[in-house]
Amino acid sequence: MKGYGVVKIGQPGWLEKEKPVPGPLDAIIRPVVIAPCSSDTHAMHGGSGPKENLILGHEAVGEVVETGNLVIKFKPGDKVVVPCVTPDWTGRYIQEGKYNAHDNTMMGSFKFLLAKDGTFAEFFHVNMADANLVILPEEIAPEAALMTVDMMSTGFHAVELAEVGYGEVVVVVGIGPVGLMSVAGAQLRGAGRIIVVGTRPNCVKIAKEYGATDVVSYKDGDIVKQIKDLAGGTVDKVIIAGGDGKTLTQAISMVKPTGIVSNVNYYDASDTFTIPAPVWGLGMANIDIRGGFCPGGAARIEKLLNNIKYKRIDPSKLITHRFDGFEKIEDAFLLMDKKPADLIKPAVFIKW
Amino acid sequence: MKGYGVVKIGQPGWLEKEKPVPGPLDAIIRPVVIAPCSSDTHAMHGGSGPKENLILGHEAVGEVVETGNLVIKFKPGDKVVVPCVTPDWTGRYIQEGKYNAHDNTMMGSFKFLLAKDGTFAEFFHVNMADANLVILPEEIAPEAALMTVDMMSTGFHAVELAEVGYGEVVVVVGIGPVGLMSVAGAQLRGAGRIIVVGTRPNCVKIAKEYGATDVVSYKDGDIVKQIKDLAGGTVDKVIIAGGDGKTLTQAISMVKPTGIVSNVNYYDASDTFTIPAPVWGLGMANIDIRGGFCPGGAARIEKLLNNIKYKRIDPSKLITHRFDGFEKIEDAFLLMDKKPADLIKPAVFIKW
Amino acid sequence: MKGYGVVKIGQPGWLEKEKPVPGPLDAIIRPVVIAPCSSDTHAMHGGSGPKENLILGHEAVGEVVETGNLVIKFKPGDKVVVPCVTPDWTGRYIQEGKYNAHDNTMMGSFKFLLAKDGTFAEFFHVNMADANLVILPEEIAPEAALMTVDMMSTGFHAVELAEVGYGEVVVVVGIGPVGLMSVAGAQLRGAGRIIVVGTRPNCVKIAKEYGATDVVSYKDGDIVKQIKDLAGGTVDKVIIAGGDGKTLTQAISMVKPTGIVSNVNYYDASDTFTIPAPVWGLGMANIDIRGGFCPGGAARIEKLLNNIKYKRIDPSKLITHRFDGFEKIEDAFLLMDKKPADLIKPAVFIKW
Amino acid sequence: MKGYGVVKIGQPGWLEKEKPVPGPLDAIIRPVVIAPCSSDTHAMHGGSGPKENLILGHEAVGEVVETGNLVIKFKPGDKVVVPCVTPDWTGRYIQEGKYNAHDNTMMGSFKFLLAKDGTFAEFFHVNMADANLVILPEEIAPEAALMTVDMMSTGFHAVELAEVGYGEVVVVVGIGPVGLMSVAGAQLRGAGRIIVVGTRPNCVKIAKEYGATDVVSYKDGDIVKQIKDLAGGTVDKVIIAGGDGKTLTQAISMVKPTGIVSNVNYYDASDTFTIPAPVWGLGMANIDIRGGFCPGGAARIEKLLNNIKYKRIDPSKLITHRFDGFEKIEDAFLLMDKKPADLIKPAVFIKW
Repeated sequence: MKGYGVVKIGQPGWLEKEKPVPGPLDAIIRPVVIAPCSSDTHAMHGGSGPKENLILGHEAVGEVVETGNLVIKFKPGDKVVVPCVTPDWTGRYIQEGKYNAHDNTMMGSFKFLLAKDGTFAEFFHVNMADANLVILPEEIAPEAALMTVDMMSTGFHAVELAEVGYGEVVVVVGIGPVGLMSVAGAQLRGAGRIIVVGTRPNCVKIAKEYGATDVVSYKDGDIVKQIKDLAGGTVDKVIIAGGDGKTLTQAISMVKPTGIVSNVNYYDASDTFTIPAPVWGLGMANIDIRGGFCPGGAARIEKLLNNIKYKRIDPSKLITHRFDGFEKIEDAFLLMDKKPADLIKPAVFIKW
Repeated sequence: MKGYGVVKIGQPGWLEKEKPVPGPLDAIIRPVVIAPCSSDTHAMHGGSGPKENLILGHEAVGEVVETGNLVIKFKPGDKVVVPCVTPDWTGRYIQEGKYNAHDNTMMGSFKFLLAKDGTFAEFFHVNMADANLVILPEEIAPEAALMTVDMMSTGFHAVELAEVGYGEVVVVVGIGPVGLMSVAGAQLRGAGRIIVVGTRPNCVKIAKEYGATDVVSYKDGDIVKQIKDLAGGTVDKVIIAGGDGKTLTQAISMVKPTGIVSNVNYYDASDTFTIPAPVWGLGMANIDIRGGFCPGGAARIEKLLNNIKYKRIDPSKLITHRFDGFEKIEDAFLLMDKKPADLIKPAVFIKW
Repeated sequence: MKGYGVVKIGQPGWLEKEKPVPGPLDAIIRPVVIAPCSSDTHAMHGGSGPKENLILGHEAVGEVVETGNLVIKFKPGDKVVVPCVTPDWTGRYIQEGKYNAHDNTMMGSFKFLLAKDGTFAEFFHVNMADANLVILPEEIAPEAALMTVDMMSTGFHAVELAEVGYGEVVVVVGIGPVGLMSVAGAQLRGAGRIIVVGTRPNCVKIAKEYGATDVVSYKDGDIVKQIKDLAGGTVDKVIIAGGDGKTLTQAISMVKPTGIVSNVNYYDASDTFTIPAPVWGLGMANIDIRGGFCPGGAARIEKLLNNIKYKRIDPSKLITHRFDGFEKIEDAFLLMDKKPADLIKPAVFIKW
Repeated sequence: MKGYGVVKIGQPGWLEKEKPVPGPLDAIIRPVVIAPCSSDTHAMHGGSGPKENLILGHEAVGEVVETGNLVIKFKPGDKVVVPCVTPDWTGRYIQEGKYNAHDNTMMGSFKFLLAKDGTFAEFFHVNMADANLVILPEEIAPEAALMTVDMMSTGFHAVELAEVGYGEVVVVVGIGPVGLMSVAGAQLRGAGRIIVVGTRPNCVKIAKEYGATDVVSYKDGDIVKQIKDLAGGTVDKVIIAGGDGKTLTQAISMVKPTGIVSNVNYYDASDTFTIPAPVWGLGMANIDIRGGFCPGGAARIEKLLNNIKYKRIDPSKLITHRFDGFEKIEDAFLLMDKKPADLIKPAVFIKW
């Protein structure tokens, strides 16, 4: 079968691979809508370690084409939403009950890209189908559902980690698609003021639609100073959805004692956090620093789909560029890699 | 000075009392907008114990007229929002850090009605002014601010106790003003489906505006059955904002194992909860039963005011009946007692 | 094969059944040490619903004799500790991340007795072996390990639900084997004073060894009054590990506002909780009422075994009566049913 | 009056100051037992900013000699335990309900040294006496009580931040007096294995008595490698109670995904945390980094005293050097500054 991915580091391209085979608990899916993500292009450039001859992609809505003999909830022909995180639910850290993204090891529940080929293929494999797949609800457009599997799940996870409460002042650093979902997620969890850090006009516009009240730009000077001036001091919570090693120090600098810094930014292996002890109150600040990968599985995605179904959010606003046809995965991927100013998220609609 | 309240149980009326005197940490306030609450009428009828010659009222926005010599943040002339719960912040249970409504004893932080005269007076007393009063923000209408001090605080507390999460299915039993704020609060904390139990057309209309997706009426049969039919089984969370002893059993019956029942209904002293053990899984259900009085103090109300300021909610929709003039407190109170079908919340605007 | 259980309600006896067959993820175990529990005798008497021709028993340490073809961590000959709760880890409520005792339904993770034959047999079946079995550590006596699978897990769960903190005053109502483990668990979570309610001299003696500081008896009058007199008022937490419908009301009556009542008692289907509203502060007390079935799975039991391995607790003190030989299961079961005054927990050691 | 402290940075000595005067809510205390702490010597050397003509000391048990006119619970002659953290309970962050060490600003509840003279004086001042002082229980030796006010409170706070659970593997880095209390506190919260990092024989001995199971020394090589070898991989929780900027990176390196690093070490203003992104899973690890100053107030200390009263812990083991007489404060302080190998904690007993 054909798939698109990384031929070798730095070189994207079409690959020819064997069609995947389901284990007894697994399913094989044919994609119907997929979206490239910056972690795909990041992986292609080598940012997440050595990779070659690997099909990329981890966001998909698709159709079941084959199931293992122990699968009971799904059958060929079912339209399904596929979480980007598909835990092995028997894993050690699942049992310990927190953040199922790490079944048996760090990020172990993220199977695409790390443990096997991804979703930019004629067919892809999903482990533990009964626990990890969700039937696409009829009321929900596939492209909206697609936005739940990583963008909403990750963006909202930041808000959950930050324990945003009613009326709080929340900063969101970075308003790419994940940051925008953190903005929407913060509003949906009762934040009062939502100050975002970003510059791209299209993102700023959508951020406001999703609930941002103030916009701060790096171009206007030190963001810590700007935000503390705006807020009249430190803020309740800071969400990091973009940036580099320095961003963490900035975030800690602007949050109140007893506040939380919540990170869902995926740093480069070459980044280093350099935090002067006074910024963290010499260790005495009771500022929690949290960060992690989004949870996975069917129940998570079903809940996020509920937020769409009951009109609490429309995440399809993120999709700024649409492509038709399997072969357009390449164009969408290369667009994602180039990141033109008006791009938030591309999606590829596939007809079979 | 004049005040309106309970002459003796069952007999409301005007009272003549001494103007209150501030202790060193306290303030004396003159009301600008007040609202009667069903707990006021409940108290008048004897539902919260013996009472006589007591000025009622615990919801007010007002103006500072006098402060104790240790008060530093407020001065005469300041327009202030007055929480209905004004803790003694040095109290034992405050120190233990949860639910500040009970400073030194059960509901001890609720001073009006229980420990002293209320807000339906020419002047009323607020303890620990620096920690318990909030300057009325210029951007916020006094009547909207008034809705934070009990209605929003209580309604939202139910949602906090219920730990409502993204996409959850939440039932709100009772859609008087507190229940309506629970509906709005559940939407503002990311609930997916919000099923309300209520019948009064005006309340149903506002409930939908605040985010209710489904309405169930006692008049159409057993609410537990109706809700389980609607939801296709048990729900994630149930909030009780109205009802009697039986309601708790109904709530437990419709929530999933590991769910939460959250109560902010103020029961009558004559109510009894009668719960057959199987309803609570013979004790094995891991269904939490929670309930309590809303938190108090300045920081709480400032956060709720933020939700108004940043357009997350407009609680002034609750106010269906408006009265002008101090002497109209009586009409408003009697209207609250009568509860006509179109009443949600009356407010009295006072000019001095 | 032979097994011991309930022939029909009220009639215990030996049964002849087919040897169980493992599914692909399962294992078949031969018991090495087992213990009857009061839930086994309770089931025999019909207290948990209709049952017939069912092998009882849910506490066992054993030896693997056969595994399904997808099992990778265990092989025949392995000595294993078997949790009484063995979740289907793909279940809906597991994914929602709280109290794994309810995989797909209330108590759904409790497979023995409810969904299949129990452990009082020549062979018994364990689902999802890789996630639910634990290798018996060499340093730990099988009988001590046996006490983790239900007694410690359940008794400690009560303490977890109660969120016992340093120096708190904790009441444990009922000092059978589970209550005794709650006493030990409360001490191991930093409780200060531990007041127990019980009368049997043997249990009282062991309760003191596990950390009880005060003992209250029903025979000396109302326990609520006795405890409030002792404590000089209400207490921080109350754990219910024995009692009937009235116990819950007593527990709520003696806990402080903002306190927690935590139940692990398994009530009879005929019990009813009758709670006057004032006891629960007319709904305003912020007293949480929690209760549930103990969590299951391998990681849970491994952690409890750690507490034995590192000498934090010796749960084998619970075992007051020892029996040798498979056929002695009957004697042990009948002893459990009779509950003589000096019995805490019997155990049967089996040689094959 | 006389007091001992910092004449100017680097120069300790006796000072002559005015006797403090109580505000209406305050009390003046005469010390009965005091203990120098490394934060006192650290302050003398300038590690916490510029200081001069300041009486040091923040650990004391004493006798009330004068009270403000609004104090109701205490009177001259009362023997009291004085928390090192004495919040202004009306403070903003107190109201937000978490970590009361920061009333109105970072560490704002720590009044001694930062906002006023300390306890090494003939008389010292305590704000909000009713909420911050505790009557010394008759059953508890003053020197044991003295160990609650900072050592136990801080050491146990680390364990609370780490949310240590039953059977967990916990590392404690640093076994000075605070680290030793973290060891004891971890055992008292149900930890299984407790691995400590330290070298001084006296501390190692006491660590084992308080529950340490394994000891690792910097002298034997990289502690991360040693601990991961011992534990067979990462551990559940890491507590930092000593070290420098590098320690935080080490701690993150040895904790599991979903684990917690909990810091109570007071870093030097010149320290910098330099954390390579991969150590923190490129931001994806769900490893929480927490750290803060111990909570204060009367209720906190009463609970810790309960742990002594009910024989859960004997913190007086920390006191290795005893001095008699007010004037010996100097010797005790200089000993603390020198830190001989056998010193854990000195105490000075004062007779008036």
